[in-house]
Amino acid sequence: MSLPSALLPSTEPLRVGLIGFGCVGQGLYNLLERLPAPGFTVARIAVRNPQKARSLPPERFEFRADALIEDDSLDLLVEVIDDPVEAFRFVGLALRRGRRVVTANKAMVARHLPALLRQQADYGGTLLYEAAVCGSIPIIRTLDTYFATEPLTAVSGIFNGSSNYVLTQMRARGTAYAEALAEAQARGFAETDPTLDMAAFDPRAKAVILAAHAFGLIPNPADVLALGIESIAPIDLKQAALAGHKIKIVARLLTLPDGGISVLVAPQRVAPDSPLFAVEDEFNAVLVEGTFAGPHALRGRGAGSFPTASAVLADLNALRAGFRYAYAKLDPHQALATDLALEVVVRSYARQRPPTVEFLGEPYAEIVEGYRFQTGYVAYTTLHRLCDDLRADGVFVVGTGAIQLLPDDETDPQLSGARAAVRFQ
Amino acid sequence: MSLPSALLPSTEPLRVGLIGFGCVGQGLYNLLERLPAPGFTVARIAVRNPQKARSLPPERFEFRADALIEDDSLDLLVEVIDDPVEAFRFVGLALRRGRRVVTANKAMVARHLPALLRQQADYGGTLLYEAAVCGSIPIIRTLDTYFATEPLTAVSGIFNGSSNYVLTQMRARGTAYAEALAEAQARGFAETDPTLDMAAFDPRAKAVILAAHAFGLIPNPADVLALGIESIAPIDLKQAALAGHKIKIVARLLTLPDGGISVLVAPQRVAPDSPLFAVEDEFNAVLVEGTFAGPHALRGRGAGSFPTASAVLADLNALRAGFRYAYAKLDPHQALATDLALEVVVRSYARQRPPTVEFLGEPYAEIVEGYRFQTGYVAYTTLHRLCDDLRADGVFVVGTGAIQLLPDDETDPQLSGARAAVRFQ
Repeated sequence: MSLPSALLPSTEPLRVGLIGFGCVGQGLYNLLERLPAPGFTVARIAVRNPQKARSLPPERFEFRADALIEDDSLDLLVEVIDDPVEAFRFVGLALRRGRRVVTANKAMVARHLPALLRQQADYGGTLLYEAAVCGSIPIIRTLDTYFATEPLTAVSGIFNGSSNYVLTQMRARGTAYAEALAEAQARGFAETDPTLDMAAFDPRAKAVILAAHAFGLIPNPADVLALGIESIAPIDLKQAALAGHKIKIVARLLTLPDGGISVLVAPQRVAPDSPLFAVEDEFNAVLVEGTFAGPHALRGRGAGSFPTASAVLADLNALRAGFRYAYAKLDPHQALATDLALEVVVRSYARQRPPTVEFLGEPYAEIVEGYRFQTGYVAYTTLHRLCDDLRADGVFVVGTGAIQLLPDDETDPQLSGARAAVRFQ
Repeated sequence: MSLPSALLPSTEPLRVGLIGFGCVGQGLYNLLERLPAPGFTVARIAVRNPQKARSLPPERFEFRADALIEDDSLDLLVEVIDDPVEAFRFVGLALRRGRRVVTANKAMVARHLPALLRQQADYGGTLLYEAAVCGSIPIIRTLDTYFATEPLTAVSGIFNGSSNYVLTQMRARGTAYAEALAEAQARGFAETDPTLDMAAFDPRAKAVILAAHAFGLIPNPADVLALGIESIAPIDLKQAALAGHKIKIVARLLTLPDGGISVLVAPQRVAPDSPLFAVEDEFNAVLVEGTFAGPHALRGRGAGSFPTASAVLADLNALRAGFRYAYAKLDPHQALATDLALEVVVRSYARQRPPTVEFLGEPYAEIVEGYRFQTGYVAYTTLHRLCDDLRADGVFVVGTGAIQLLPDDETDPQLSGARAAVRFQ
């Protein structure tokens, strides 16, 4: 079969400036080395620490990232450093020069998305960040482009590979929390600061980014409820297992019955019929509920050097093709909805005073093996306000998945039974 | 937060010419009616049959599709008729006028892809066909764009909603084949001619299309092995269930150990640990195995008016944004590899002569409840040659999932044990 040459892939490699040579940066470098015709060549590499031993000869590295940003012979820039403050400085500088940039820094994008949008609009540059959310799963472009005009009712999933790895090891092998965490770090799944993963700050940043593409809402990350697993104990997994459930950190973006959009991240008991139940180890999954398209599930590796680097490479290809995010649903007037209550199980020590959780109505309480379990609805804003205190006291909070809108009169401690519970997997 | 207006969605609706007003065409029309700002308006509708009762007033319809193709006031054309011959004529006409076209006709695209590529290259038009494969799952753009440079080792999945619906109903509710098929048709999942679904011609066409985007191979559909479920009986499901397996029609595109790419579609026994096990009813799923990106799974509705229409709408949005498929891996010199053997279970009636299946080596044979079951490896080319005869004799063939390369000397009936079996889920 003879084919028009215009359809055959271009062979001219683009010159890439790489800022950062950690797990993702090295992964990208190695990936490009192994591809027969990658289409990109890493022309310059900037790192911060001149002392650190690296996998390439010292002459491949330089120590002033600004020099790469100023080098117009570089076609594309890739920013994959850990520090979100420095990352924002580099990316901001680059965008103000109208450059095409790929980043994997979810904390930076989540915190500065409005500024990054403005810089692109003002100076004509482009920023892509597929690798920032759920590793190798192409969820940002799918939400941004494929579902650009599809009205979505919910986006949820497991957005953090290292905490999912920890939870999987604890449940399947009975590994203690600290040991499972150390193993996740040794495998390169966890962030340098494990708090980002285990306190759910990392999946919260990812949820904020997806909210922009799925619902046009850009919440302030600090306003979004994020409950982690730092207080989790074997008893918590055991109690969930009694009902056949696993515990997963589930991020949820949802349209409330009154039209508001809420975002939250919390440990949740997950039943076997949920598509999230079988998502184990460092795998991530995203469930997308479309009004017309129906339910969708995307699953893939959420962490790891090559899977994340492959997403960076996909963005480089997209930049070559002139792609930019459309943000078709962006609505600057939209505010994060917080007028909801979550059904949660609050686990504390029976010998301690019960934690002050402000249940809406009387919680169902039981004592099991020296632990107190209280189950009931708690307002989103209450959990948001108390979560640091609860963590400091070693109290573990896990959702059942059930959610209710708060009554119009928020001071009413009794939820109206007439309001339909909105239950998502 | 104030945002640059350039980032806000454009409001000027594009004029669409709609050719065909069946399940998908009506779905698209209704979907656009229900969206607050769809960005597209159906300006003209062409249908074939002036007599047919329709959901819109008669004045909305005309009967010469060519008039739409010639109307340059239409920005985009959507071709969603059943007949692949007529569809190719319309799409060819449109592409030769350099027009932007969306089609959902998988049989037409699979049969004529080289010609469609040439027409686009010669006249500058664009053809997108996301809705042709797996309903609302964005698999074509994901393979074409996101995995453009990722070396894939396998793409597999459930590509046909109606046969999956039939298999699900037969297993879960004990429904007879004919009854389950009638139900699938009543629900609008099945093609007008059910043979396309049940003899696996429909998933074969989809596999051919995905082969072009995933591996750069465009096989002739007629050369690709397609085994269907027209001879399936309750005993087949029962025997699979003894091992805890379900039967699914699984399409497989795979890289063989010698580098060749093979494509096949066949009923397969699927174990509970496969991501395909839980894919029921009209749902489809695609599993993508990337060398660097790792394993991916995408699941969604594979049939139905709105899910398919939502994929057509996504293509309209993509055309608006100037998107076209890259076909980055296209290799005109690549031929379909057929030098492999599948492990299959061949079920016939014990009272009949055993079918002539030419097993490689002696099959394992047993008689159960008046049926003969023979299990062993059969060459791809043998199954391809015999499949019509087997179907005519009411013989049912189901794969175990195991595959081996044929020995270099193809006349050797005994497979070398040293060759690693390549087993995919």
